[in-house]
Amino acid sequence: MLVVMKAQATPEEIRAVCAHIEQLGYRAHPLPGAQRTAIGITGNKGEADRGNLESLPGVAEVIRVSKAYKLASRDVKEEDTVIRFAGSSAAIGGQDLAVIAGPCSIESREQAFAIAEHVAAAGARFFRGGAYKPRTSPYAFQGLGLEALRIMAEIRQTFGLRIVTEALDAETLDLVAEWADVIQIGARNMQNFSLLKRAGRLRKPVLIKRGMSATLEEFLMAAEYVMSEGNYEVILCERGVRTFSDHARNTLDLSIIPALQRASHLPILVDPSHGTGRRDSVLPMARAAVAAGADGVMVEVHNHPENALSDGPQSIYPDQFAGMMDEIERIAPVVGRHLPRGVHAAAAAQ
Amino acid sequence: MLVVMKAQATPEEIRAVCAHIEQLGYRAHPLPGAQRTAIGITGNKGEADRGNLESLPGVAEVIRVSKAYKLASRDVKEEDTVIRFAGSSAAIGGQDLAVIAGPCSIESREQAFAIAEHVAAAGARFFRGGAYKPRTSPYAFQGLGLEALRIMAEIRQTFGLRIVTEALDAETLDLVAEWADVIQIGARNMQNFSLLKRAGRLRKPVLIKRGMSATLEEFLMAAEYVMSEGNYEVILCERGVRTFSDHARNTLDLSIIPALQRASHLPILVDPSHGTGRRDSVLPMARAAVAAGADGVMVEVHNHPENALSDGPQSIYPDQFAGMMDEIERIAPVVGRHLPRGVHAAAAAQ
Amino acid sequence: MLVVMKAQATPEEIRAVCAHIEQLGYRAHPLPGAQRTAIGITGNKGEADRGNLESLPGVAEVIRVSKAYKLASRDVKEEDTVIRFAGSSAAIGGQDLAVIAGPCSIESREQAFAIAEHVAAAGARFFRGGAYKPRTSPYAFQGLGLEALRIMAEIRQTFGLRIVTEALDAETLDLVAEWADVIQIGARNMQNFSLLKRAGRLRKPVLIKRGMSATLEEFLMAAEYVMSEGNYEVILCERGVRTFSDHARNTLDLSIIPALQRASHLPILVDPSHGTGRRDSVLPMARAAVAAGADGVMVEVHNHPENALSDGPQSIYPDQFAGMMDEIERIAPVVGRHLPRGVHAAAAAQ
Amino acid sequence: MLVVMKAQATPEEIRAVCAHIEQLGYRAHPLPGAQRTAIGITGNKGEADRGNLESLPGVAEVIRVSKAYKLASRDVKEEDTVIRFAGSSAAIGGQDLAVIAGPCSIESREQAFAIAEHVAAAGARFFRGGAYKPRTSPYAFQGLGLEALRIMAEIRQTFGLRIVTEALDAETLDLVAEWADVIQIGARNMQNFSLLKRAGRLRKPVLIKRGMSATLEEFLMAAEYVMSEGNYEVILCERGVRTFSDHARNTLDLSIIPALQRASHLPILVDPSHGTGRRDSVLPMARAAVAAGADGVMVEVHNHPENALSDGPQSIYPDQFAGMMDEIERIAPVVGRHLPRGVHAAAAAQ
Repeated sequence: MLVVMKAQATPEEIRAVCAHIEQLGYRAHPLPGAQRTAIGITGNKGEADRGNLESLPGVAEVIRVSKAYKLASRDVKEEDTVIRFAGSSAAIGGQDLAVIAGPCSIESREQAFAIAEHVAAAGARFFRGGAYKPRTSPYAFQGLGLEALRIMAEIRQTFGLRIVTEALDAETLDLVAEWADVIQIGARNMQNFSLLKRAGRLRKPVLIKRGMSATLEEFLMAAEYVMSEGNYEVILCERGVRTFSDHARNTLDLSIIPALQRASHLPILVDPSHGTGRRDSVLPMARAAVAAGADGVMVEVHNHPENALSDGPQSIYPDQFAGMMDEIERIAPVVGRHLPRGVHAAAAAQ
Repeated sequence: MLVVMKAQATPEEIRAVCAHIEQLGYRAHPLPGAQRTAIGITGNKGEADRGNLESLPGVAEVIRVSKAYKLASRDVKEEDTVIRFAGSSAAIGGQDLAVIAGPCSIESREQAFAIAEHVAAAGARFFRGGAYKPRTSPYAFQGLGLEALRIMAEIRQTFGLRIVTEALDAETLDLVAEWADVIQIGARNMQNFSLLKRAGRLRKPVLIKRGMSATLEEFLMAAEYVMSEGNYEVILCERGVRTFSDHARNTLDLSIIPALQRASHLPILVDPSHGTGRRDSVLPMARAAVAAGADGVMVEVHNHPENALSDGPQSIYPDQFAGMMDEIERIAPVVGRHLPRGVHAAAAAQ
Repeated sequence: MLVVMKAQATPEEIRAVCAHIEQLGYRAHPLPGAQRTAIGITGNKGEADRGNLESLPGVAEVIRVSKAYKLASRDVKEEDTVIRFAGSSAAIGGQDLAVIAGPCSIESREQAFAIAEHVAAAGARFFRGGAYKPRTSPYAFQGLGLEALRIMAEIRQTFGLRIVTEALDAETLDLVAEWADVIQIGARNMQNFSLLKRAGRLRKPVLIKRGMSATLEEFLMAAEYVMSEGNYEVILCERGVRTFSDHARNTLDLSIIPALQRASHLPILVDPSHGTGRRDSVLPMARAAVAAGADGVMVEVHNHPENALSDGPQSIYPDQFAGMMDEIERIAPVVGRHLPRGVHAAAAAQ
Repeated sequence: MLVVMKAQATPEEIRAVCAHIEQLGYRAHPLPGAQRTAIGITGNKGEADRGNLESLPGVAEVIRVSKAYKLASRDVKEEDTVIRFAGSSAAIGGQDLAVIAGPCSIESREQAFAIAEHVAAAGARFFRGGAYKPRTSPYAFQGLGLEALRIMAEIRQTFGLRIVTEALDAETLDLVAEWADVIQIGARNMQNFSLLKRAGRLRKPVLIKRGMSATLEEFLMAAEYVMSEGNYEVILCERGVRTFSDHARNTLDLSIIPALQRASHLPILVDPSHGTGRRDSVLPMARAAVAAGADGVMVEVHNHPENALSDGPQSIYPDQFAGMMDEIERIAPVVGRHLPRGVHAAAAAQ
């Protein structure tokens, strides 16, 4: 930590701040500058609250140097985390691009199977579908719940796809952990710390979507909450942030990909569907995500988006999805990646 | 709803959109313009999903006209909601300004009582103190829990102050509802819809803090979630939003006060402590909030902020709090309000 | 400046950074921490570019400590700047609140005089009116130009009001400087450094509106540009910033008032008309600005806003303006201020 | 335009609004809804000011439907604009990717030639270098001015590179137009309408950088200003916007690429150097820009970034630039593009 003194701070005030720091058990290093004196602090373990220092007379600012995340940090683990799934060659992280595709909501067995067949044929290895939906309005469709989980379990059985679906609270977390392969924590719950801690006590991979106005550090702190309870299989997912920009529903912040890769060893996916909210923008942003170095993408696919019960305008058609797979497959080698195609894709291609 | 067609939309495309609208059971009203045709829709009940329409050929944009909130809307209830407390003249909403004050966290019985005595003496009628703390870091102080709730119940007993404290999840919600007078839902949980619905089934007032990047409509939809379950005693609280601005921890958005008062009948408070994150800015912003027409303020007060376990730099000193009370008391009549002083203030003044 | 090394930085890398710093003529102070080493730099004059340091191996981050603004800073001049006008008791800064009022655009002599009469009668001492308008569309009304400047000069003559109007470029700057009392630099030109420097070579007060996404530091650097050329009469004006928030045209950032007052000695006004874009919100925000400690307000007043050629929806009616004057007059003493009423107000009151 | 009435609006108020609309020479189409009545307006030419309507009793909101940009719009010109340069096969827009590269500032003839040789050898066809620099601080290096323009003219002569450089005001605009091939208008001047109009009267291509908080519509309106004066050769350049996000200097908003391509026929480039402010992020974002469909990229290259007089931390090394060229060349065909390599690249490769 660094304490910056005001230009007018007196020598007594500087001495008093140093004394206070030493009293807390740290060492103070006064650094007189042309305009102001700064005081370096060593010996703190990173958790020291800067609050008390900012209150002292003459102090202008306190600057924190250590990062609050540890287990999520590359400082602690240098090699990339790769998440694998028993009985499958599917992985998230590492050289293989991961593609998670499916409808916003599971609406019926027929709809889900029809879409799953398309995405499996195109080579996806992960299927997404909402069973419990966090809807802004209490009057909107809230998801089929357990029935949707059962349908997705059948889809895993039939198509060999791994299942990713969102949990909203303690109850749905236990159900999702039981039926799915990856537990999704939505953007609105990225700082629902009770839910994160509870997910940390499970032994299923957790995919955390970036909150709508979360900084990189807050995003990694959400991962840290899960990891601090012993669950190290965390996947990050950029899905756009809130800005003044009005040409898309959110502003997809792809530059967080290289920044996260410098700071953390966790895999990072991108959701261009929620990230843009517009079908026409999904393919360009999926390509851009892969080109920027993302570990994969998560997209909404619907066979009849015009009748979708939620998020129709951002769902792509099955043939668009197949086109996207071809495009990202061609971009993958430029970033040292490979797009594996699932078992069913191979079968379908024969 | 209004469907805006592209400039190049063909007459067939326009007819097809109209037919689609009529098929959904609504009436379509094509409005040819100089550049584009727009199609008005009547007969919808407000919940129609616009998704399907944006998918039709030739459609440029779909504009929603009805608001999604109903119970929270002034369209449904014109007169202001006033929340009263049995056995007390304290109220939130209406002519009396409500002042909620206390430490960020309850740290000990001594600390809490010392601060409560100060704020009661200065005339506050509500005491706030964190029992369960939503901390960005899993390694930071998480609150005293039930012990803190018990201390605050004693404070109510001793000083006649009504207690406001935050619930984080289902378990703490039940405990807070049992021990406190107002259940606070924090900014990070503003779209934790499970928690909001659960709070809606209780019969205690619920204070909802605005999410860090919530629009006015999303803020009122959070209230709607609580109200849709039958609990109509909802208090809104502006606490600053996330922007690029770096001179304060958040950007306090006071212009939401008149905007909310036009749209809704619910009371609106302002938290200048979290809203700025800087002690020096709390009093100016508390005065500004009252001058802008807020129904009251919520501020952090600490007798030793330099030793506070959380949010020290934004807590004001007891004498600053007393000064703030005097200032807002003088501003109150300009906006047709009155600052009632609690029983203990009267006693202290004698 | 402070250089923060990566956790894995080697002793050689740390030594190399120190050597580089010393080579630049500064002193390096290595501060080993629990996780990382930081290196304090002393002896720099504040202008050192941190660019080169961030390029060295092992460096994680470079933190600047000194502020770039000097003449605008309270470090350099502790007492508040008060701007006075020859032959008038009007002032901006100091104990008296300054009120600048008038139409968005001067549309005709009749319109301008009618509005000026109203605002003078209500006690304003400054009249604003656009002669040259920065319009987003090249097809929109661009202002009456020189004719408007002449009308305003007559208004000064007739009502004793000081004239504030915007300059857009070199040509209009010279004209505005010739005819008006205060030169306004609009938000869109806050970083038009050529214009700022040119304004700095004049000897007329310059009112700078905050750019739509300007930080406090950038705002003060715009003032610094003017001051660095020798013109020290600079007035700052907050007018709202761009955020995701959609209930107002901009988000009025009142907490910049106390922050600016800590950092700078320059007077700070608030424009609640552009700051909200909604007539209904102008009075609440004008009151809030004064309560927060602003040195005054700048508001748009129109006698027939429904026919205004620009910004009708945010212009208040003359009687609303009179009401606003009464309200801020009552709030002024709470913040140690006074609202002087102009000569014509006194005359009108008799 | 669409006028939305309040839920409580009376039939008289609705009739009055209709009468007002008809009086303005338009047609009013009342559309009674379940909750509110909306009134469609036809016959307006797109420039009607909505101001007056929002003032009428009972009106809740006025929604504009037509877009304000015309010449920049795809409604007016469906095919993509391609900008060509006499005596060169270089182009901006169309199938060929355009790459503009060079230092932030021209610092000396040696530096400029050394960098130009590198970027020409790697195949770039456009050279950028600042002659006039818009610096936040008046005390920072402001550029070499005319000397830099002369150096770049020599570079064009020697390497066949087309020259792109920024104009700050009327004087430098004329000089840049005389010496360079493309006139750059910087982000801070995107709404400097005087400068845009003046650039519109020249017959040199104008590259406009997106303002730090400009919406898509404002960005296109800046182009419209240039085009409305008769200069149709406008190039748009995304360079990141201001948000709360702190892991990069700006938030690069790549999703504006498909959105602009839907709305406009103008070419769109991306500047990942200013867009991220970090060398490590430039290549990932350059690849992402091309993958998203941009017409090219503009990047800062420096042979000794650690000694750069401005923006060192975001400049890439010559060998990184060569690597970037190879990467985007491989991505280009995925989006139906091709990366032409300049004459000197061919020569160098022999």
